[in-house]
Amino acid sequence: MARHYELIHPKTHLRVLSRYEIQQLKDVSSRTHELLRRCSYAVLSAGSQNDDYLELEKEYKDFNIVVDQEDRGIILRLTGAPANAFVDNEIIRGVREQLFSVLRDILYVDESILKAHRFNLNNSEDITNAVFHILRNANILQPDMQPNLVVCWGGHSIAPHEYQYTKDVGYQLGLRGMDIGTGCGPGAMKGPMKGATIGHAKQHIRDGRYIGITEPGIIAAEAPNPIVNQLVILPDIEKRLEAFIRLAHGIVIFPGGPGTAEELLYLLGVLSHPDNARIPFPLIITGPKEAEEYLYDIDRFIGETLGKDAQQRYEIIIADEEKVARRMKAGIHEVETFRREHNDAFFYNWALTIQDEFQHPFDPTHEAMQSLALTHTLPGHELAANLRRAFSGIVAGNVKADGVSRVRENGPYQITGDRDILEGMDRLLRAMVEHGRMKIKGNYKPCYEIVSS
Amino acid sequence: MARHYELIHPKTHLRVLSRYEIQQLKDVSSRTHELLRRCSYAVLSAGSQNDDYLELEKEYKDFNIVVDQEDRGIILRLTGAPANAFVDNEIIRGVREQLFSVLRDILYVDESILKAHRFNLNNSEDITNAVFHILRNANILQPDMQPNLVVCWGGHSIAPHEYQYTKDVGYQLGLRGMDIGTGCGPGAMKGPMKGATIGHAKQHIRDGRYIGITEPGIIAAEAPNPIVNQLVILPDIEKRLEAFIRLAHGIVIFPGGPGTAEELLYLLGVLSHPDNARIPFPLIITGPKEAEEYLYDIDRFIGETLGKDAQQRYEIIIADEEKVARRMKAGIHEVETFRREHNDAFFYNWALTIQDEFQHPFDPTHEAMQSLALTHTLPGHELAANLRRAFSGIVAGNVKADGVSRVRENGPYQITGDRDILEGMDRLLRAMVEHGRMKIKGNYKPCYEIVSS
Amino acid sequence: MARHYELIHPKTHLRVLSRYEIQQLKDVSSRTHELLRRCSYAVLSAGSQNDDYLELEKEYKDFNIVVDQEDRGIILRLTGAPANAFVDNEIIRGVREQLFSVLRDILYVDESILKAHRFNLNNSEDITNAVFHILRNANILQPDMQPNLVVCWGGHSIAPHEYQYTKDVGYQLGLRGMDIGTGCGPGAMKGPMKGATIGHAKQHIRDGRYIGITEPGIIAAEAPNPIVNQLVILPDIEKRLEAFIRLAHGIVIFPGGPGTAEELLYLLGVLSHPDNARIPFPLIITGPKEAEEYLYDIDRFIGETLGKDAQQRYEIIIADEEKVARRMKAGIHEVETFRREHNDAFFYNWALTIQDEFQHPFDPTHEAMQSLALTHTLPGHELAANLRRAFSGIVAGNVKADGVSRVRENGPYQITGDRDILEGMDRLLRAMVEHGRMKIKGNYKPCYEIVSS
Amino acid sequence: MARHYELIHPKTHLRVLSRYEIQQLKDVSSRTHELLRRCSYAVLSAGSQNDDYLELEKEYKDFNIVVDQEDRGIILRLTGAPANAFVDNEIIRGVREQLFSVLRDILYVDESILKAHRFNLNNSEDITNAVFHILRNANILQPDMQPNLVVCWGGHSIAPHEYQYTKDVGYQLGLRGMDIGTGCGPGAMKGPMKGATIGHAKQHIRDGRYIGITEPGIIAAEAPNPIVNQLVILPDIEKRLEAFIRLAHGIVIFPGGPGTAEELLYLLGVLSHPDNARIPFPLIITGPKEAEEYLYDIDRFIGETLGKDAQQRYEIIIADEEKVARRMKAGIHEVETFRREHNDAFFYNWALTIQDEFQHPFDPTHEAMQSLALTHTLPGHELAANLRRAFSGIVAGNVKADGVSRVRENGPYQITGDRDILEGMDRLLRAMVEHGRMKIKGNYKPCYEIVSS
Repeated sequence: MARHYELIHPKTHLRVLSRYEIQQLKDVSSRTHELLRRCSYAVLSAGSQNDDYLELEKEYKDFNIVVDQEDRGIILRLTGAPANAFVDNEIIRGVREQLFSVLRDILYVDESILKAHRFNLNNSEDITNAVFHILRNANILQPDMQPNLVVCWGGHSIAPHEYQYTKDVGYQLGLRGMDIGTGCGPGAMKGPMKGATIGHAKQHIRDGRYIGITEPGIIAAEAPNPIVNQLVILPDIEKRLEAFIRLAHGIVIFPGGPGTAEELLYLLGVLSHPDNARIPFPLIITGPKEAEEYLYDIDRFIGETLGKDAQQRYEIIIADEEKVARRMKAGIHEVETFRREHNDAFFYNWALTIQDEFQHPFDPTHEAMQSLALTHTLPGHELAANLRRAFSGIVAGNVKADGVSRVRENGPYQITGDRDILEGMDRLLRAMVEHGRMKIKGNYKPCYEIVSS
Repeated sequence: MARHYELIHPKTHLRVLSRYEIQQLKDVSSRTHELLRRCSYAVLSAGSQNDDYLELEKEYKDFNIVVDQEDRGIILRLTGAPANAFVDNEIIRGVREQLFSVLRDILYVDESILKAHRFNLNNSEDITNAVFHILRNANILQPDMQPNLVVCWGGHSIAPHEYQYTKDVGYQLGLRGMDIGTGCGPGAMKGPMKGATIGHAKQHIRDGRYIGITEPGIIAAEAPNPIVNQLVILPDIEKRLEAFIRLAHGIVIFPGGPGTAEELLYLLGVLSHPDNARIPFPLIITGPKEAEEYLYDIDRFIGETLGKDAQQRYEIIIADEEKVARRMKAGIHEVETFRREHNDAFFYNWALTIQDEFQHPFDPTHEAMQSLALTHTLPGHELAANLRRAFSGIVAGNVKADGVSRVRENGPYQITGDRDILEGMDRLLRAMVEHGRMKIKGNYKPCYEIVSS
Repeated sequence: MARHYELIHPKTHLRVLSRYEIQQLKDVSSRTHELLRRCSYAVLSAGSQNDDYLELEKEYKDFNIVVDQEDRGIILRLTGAPANAFVDNEIIRGVREQLFSVLRDILYVDESILKAHRFNLNNSEDITNAVFHILRNANILQPDMQPNLVVCWGGHSIAPHEYQYTKDVGYQLGLRGMDIGTGCGPGAMKGPMKGATIGHAKQHIRDGRYIGITEPGIIAAEAPNPIVNQLVILPDIEKRLEAFIRLAHGIVIFPGGPGTAEELLYLLGVLSHPDNARIPFPLIITGPKEAEEYLYDIDRFIGETLGKDAQQRYEIIIADEEKVARRMKAGIHEVETFRREHNDAFFYNWALTIQDEFQHPFDPTHEAMQSLALTHTLPGHELAANLRRAFSGIVAGNVKADGVSRVRENGPYQITGDRDILEGMDRLLRAMVEHGRMKIKGNYKPCYEIVSS
Repeated sequence: MARHYELIHPKTHLRVLSRYEIQQLKDVSSRTHELLRRCSYAVLSAGSQNDDYLELEKEYKDFNIVVDQEDRGIILRLTGAPANAFVDNEIIRGVREQLFSVLRDILYVDESILKAHRFNLNNSEDITNAVFHILRNANILQPDMQPNLVVCWGGHSIAPHEYQYTKDVGYQLGLRGMDIGTGCGPGAMKGPMKGATIGHAKQHIRDGRYIGITEPGIIAAEAPNPIVNQLVILPDIEKRLEAFIRLAHGIVIFPGGPGTAEELLYLLGVLSHPDNARIPFPLIITGPKEAEEYLYDIDRFIGETLGKDAQQRYEIIIADEEKVARRMKAGIHEVETFRREHNDAFFYNWALTIQDEFQHPFDPTHEAMQSLALTHTLPGHELAANLRRAFSGIVAGNVKADGVSRVRENGPYQITGDRDILEGMDRLLRAMVEHGRMKIKGNYKPCYEIVSS
């Protein structure tokens, strides 16, 4: 049941918009308005467990959002909003705040990043600056805080015992005063936030941060949890990934599907750059007892593709949430010492070198996917970059608008490369299918084929 | 493993103590110091699931607490504190705050209620005033708030599915902006607070109140949860019960043992006074599907003993947490309207008449228990008062210091009265034993005998 | 023009009163109600420059205040309130807050100090404890603050250039982050607060404290300034003096009349006790160039009566407001170091020994005034105590209800003693009359006669 | 005496700067750095009463400011800073905050307005949007506030009794809860803020806003007062004027020199546009008794040049500060009603039409000044625009860097036009010279000549 007419007044994110901005948002034919509509719908689907693109699309058709000026600022008029976002006819405040975050980021990216010509988005340094500006504009960069942000990655589609484990880890992190950042969808993105909420409550921490970092392509499949009290929408996957690792003071990886693999490969690819060798970056891969085998499969795949050095950047901890939290706290302490010594900002990891191939958007056409070189003849970080792209394409084929359409039209993506690399991928992907990590809804039909050359 | 030396600095409950007060707390031979030690130990046992008095007593022997003056106020020195209260060697802030609440209430009750001669504690009106003063001194009475306090009663020893249900109800209450008050122990006292914490987080409510109301006799068996951010220690059972019902804007009762029965009988006894007939007081008895039969047993017992009128003061809702929350919200709305019309304070239910027999402390000696008149020849509220006392005695025999010792020495309490009343009691008590509602730890050996006359 | 009907809702000092307290305040025949009425009237006369008791009394007759319960706490109903307290028909918030401070202190002193029997008010230590409790209840004791409270004493009736100088000193103190406490009337009690307000504004200090310390006898003649944001009413002169010196981290004395002389003699009497010899207590006597001679007259009088040691406890600074502020800041720094070393509270100067003769109320009857021994045969602190009483009596004869009536009936007080002491007094008193320091309104007719023996 | 090395850490305006921004500020050869240096120096001259450009320039030579990155954000290193800004070696917090405001605005205007190509600064609507964006970025636009901002205009060089009157008016405005905006220099720009500070203190208003609106050309001569807690630097005179009138809910004009005349002509020119006829805009011209004649001279000049309609937009009130405040409050109430009815923002007066000739920067070269058409043959608003420019040029010739140099080189500006207009101007200008309104420092030598044609 969708709601048919709602007036939403902002509370804290009271946005003061210029006439020009309001007109832009009102122009229903504009890309800006479509982006606003799409992201707002995702936010209003709060807590939805549906990642089936086609079903979502149907409900979405009747939804609209209009921005109007009033004496005290703007108001939003909603038509056909999902009922989830409301309790007894009132919008959940967490959702309301997120709507205004959406508005803020869409306008800012459009006006101040894309149209502004201040940033050459083909230039590595400018991309890093652009990500910085978007995060600053979203008030995510807080200079008055000690390093305490733990980014948690993991599957949006996971089993109950894994979900419980992510809550337990979140609880122990929260109890130690750490804040949480995630991709802000369900599963391993929601569990740590819920756990940390209870941990923070016991410590009477009232200003705990639950940061959600997303992008317009994925937000529909991973509707933000209303606990998220700082939501930021980056313009694409690669900028989202950069935001994650420049913000994080440490990262915990839970069991997940291809999206999680993409994230891990991205991070290890970046960390394996020689310039990053001495920069501390606490990274823990963890899961409950039942996930042990799967996590060691991933470890082996990393070993076989990226090598020993990559493996030494992380620690695997099985079924010990307190240890995860204690190790993370110790690791973040090292980060703090390092930044202090180098006069490096606590709030943005400028020191990290990220190479071009990790920053430029990858569009997973069938051709692009087929021509990805997955071979040991490449230097390590290039192989990592290509593996990252391969998994990114699979995520798109599973749950994203463009990807799903392409696969429906042209059949599964063809992935080629060195036999042992492909075998490792195949083993992982088959485990993901088996564990139900690919998609929440429906039977999973693979969107890819591993084609040994 | 107990910690051996801890310095605790207050943060928010920074207490400014006079020299005289500090001396009083330092005098280890005084009743005040013993009370402080006992209640502090309970608070430091945060989250303990042990209600076995004898075991607790053993660990307790080595614990001590000393209060000292420093430039910015007082500090506490702890020896032998339970490890539960600490995370990585730092005291949990929720626990620390509660220690200072203990200090505050013990001093205040001693100095300003008991020694002050301002209150004649044999006089009904003075008792009500004394309860008011204790709550005001504890900052519980907040005049700037709309009525929104839901008191939740229920067993400290309950099954996992019942615990989950109390969390679900708490979540729905929190999502609707309601605050929670409980007796602040485990089980049905903790669940609603955890649930409400998540509900509040989604509504971005940062000042949710989790009020714990206890007394020195029960606090050891029902160690406060660190989520409790307002703890108050009343001097005895009866004043605690009065605090509950004068503070509550509505009450939810979950399945529980004799303590919960005591609370329900107390409340219905008070509400059945004719002067209270027109005062709105939302009261919901609820539980998951599995508890349905047990709750209707209680309903029947009320019907048989206190009659139809008493039954009409509550609503029974089975396995519908949203309905509980919606009905409670509607009920509280009526309370607000009523108080506004009568210029009655939102923060203290002065209008409720509580008769003497519900206010005077009952000491459950064997003799007192045996001579309780449980007969239909008494007026309704007197029967309710005596039934309340009978269950109160059973709680003492189960988990309280004095009660456990008496029963060990003199054997089970003998309870006599009208056959049908005793049969009803017996049926309920047997169900409580069967469901494990009597005690958390060990096999339960009844501390009472139903002796039909 | 007096206002005839006003409903006053509290904002921050929302008081939660018990039924018993409200009844007490409603009983118009009670001493409590009369005290409330009198002090409230003084507060509502905000900024009045009238200290003529008889005129004030006439206007006062038609004034009344009634306390009522409402849903969110109490409200006040005013009849015949002075127009000063209102701007465009709305009460000035500073005044409104002060009304609730009056209410708070009157009830607390009555219930918890006088009636409570906890304090034996003939015992020195208990008096000190009682003062502590009153200040704590008024939230004046803030344990989380560095020492920064400068108490300013000086005349309520002073010339414009002296007033300007008190503002200049206040400005320099405020600019250095110091807070101000005064007796809260006009003249040298208001100037430093106005100056500090501007100093604080430049430092963007938004929580500057402007503490007014008064007692029911003097409040009518020294109506609190609305800038006062913490008002406390002690029960009598001696407790007010004790409050001043136990709260102050340093004291600045401006030119004044007999009240200021009383304060200085009190302080020097206390400081000359051997136990206080090593306790740092910054004390600066200061005034503009024009007041130089007068200040040195006072200095000489101190030298002749209390001796060299007393003179060494203060520094005289003429016409240099920056130096006053710098010296005071340095002095307070020593106070902080001393308290830290001795684990002494920052917020209350427990270490200071105050002897009985400075604590017991002195009632200036004609007989008592005449029999005061002002002779060098007394030990130093006793002479100081008697001199203090003599000046206290003169203040009463000038502006206080009882004193004015007594002098009207029985003629001027007769003051006797050693010739040189009396000559010194006479010289000072004549200067006070000449400078107009005795009273603001009307021609001054001395209420005393110096009678050489 | 200038200070030689200072490290300034931000407190509230903690700026998070990107690497690119820091590099830009570090490049000492850049226009940005020079702008930063110049404006920072002005801010550090807090409270300076010097408006002599040549003297200021000399002291300025040795001053430098460097921006550095640290772990918690940026810090500023100052060399040769004026001693005024410090108290006992610590920078005044108000000044420190303003330094970071300077930094914020210089970067923002440069990056997001000038370089961004989003705004066509030849287009009227875009100019209005640009002003909006600068104010929004400076947090001046607060959507959660009732209209309450009174902009005060008047001379920086005024006599003591006029200064006192501006304080009195500010006090009455502050007592009624109104906030103050000014050009943030001395004289009539400082007085109302000081007065309002005391008024706010009595009302216990802790978040009073003291908004300073300036531009790089004038800031040196009108160093901001540290009371200013919101400083914004617009890029030029015309945008500053637009900011004033789009922010103000009402304007009070005190006696002043050519700058004040410029402001009044600008405002009346805008208001006389037919589209603005029905927009309420409270405007009061006021001064003490002594200024009466001068104010009526101005009134007459307006009547003769802009006509009756222009005269009807303001009210003249002589020597009645309470009336000014009451009338302003009533006027702002109308503004609130009007905006509410038209869904117009409280925080920015979008509805006001400002014509191109008032928005485009005017560069007062000798040629431009001489060719200004000051003739009745022009439409009213064009004459107003040109008169505004003439006075603007005179301000430049008096106290601004470029203007002073030009006049030194080329002699006084030649002003031509209709005889009666020139006579009116001449009369006003001569009065300004006579009253000392032209400049604070030194004997005034006119920078203009009235040349009758």
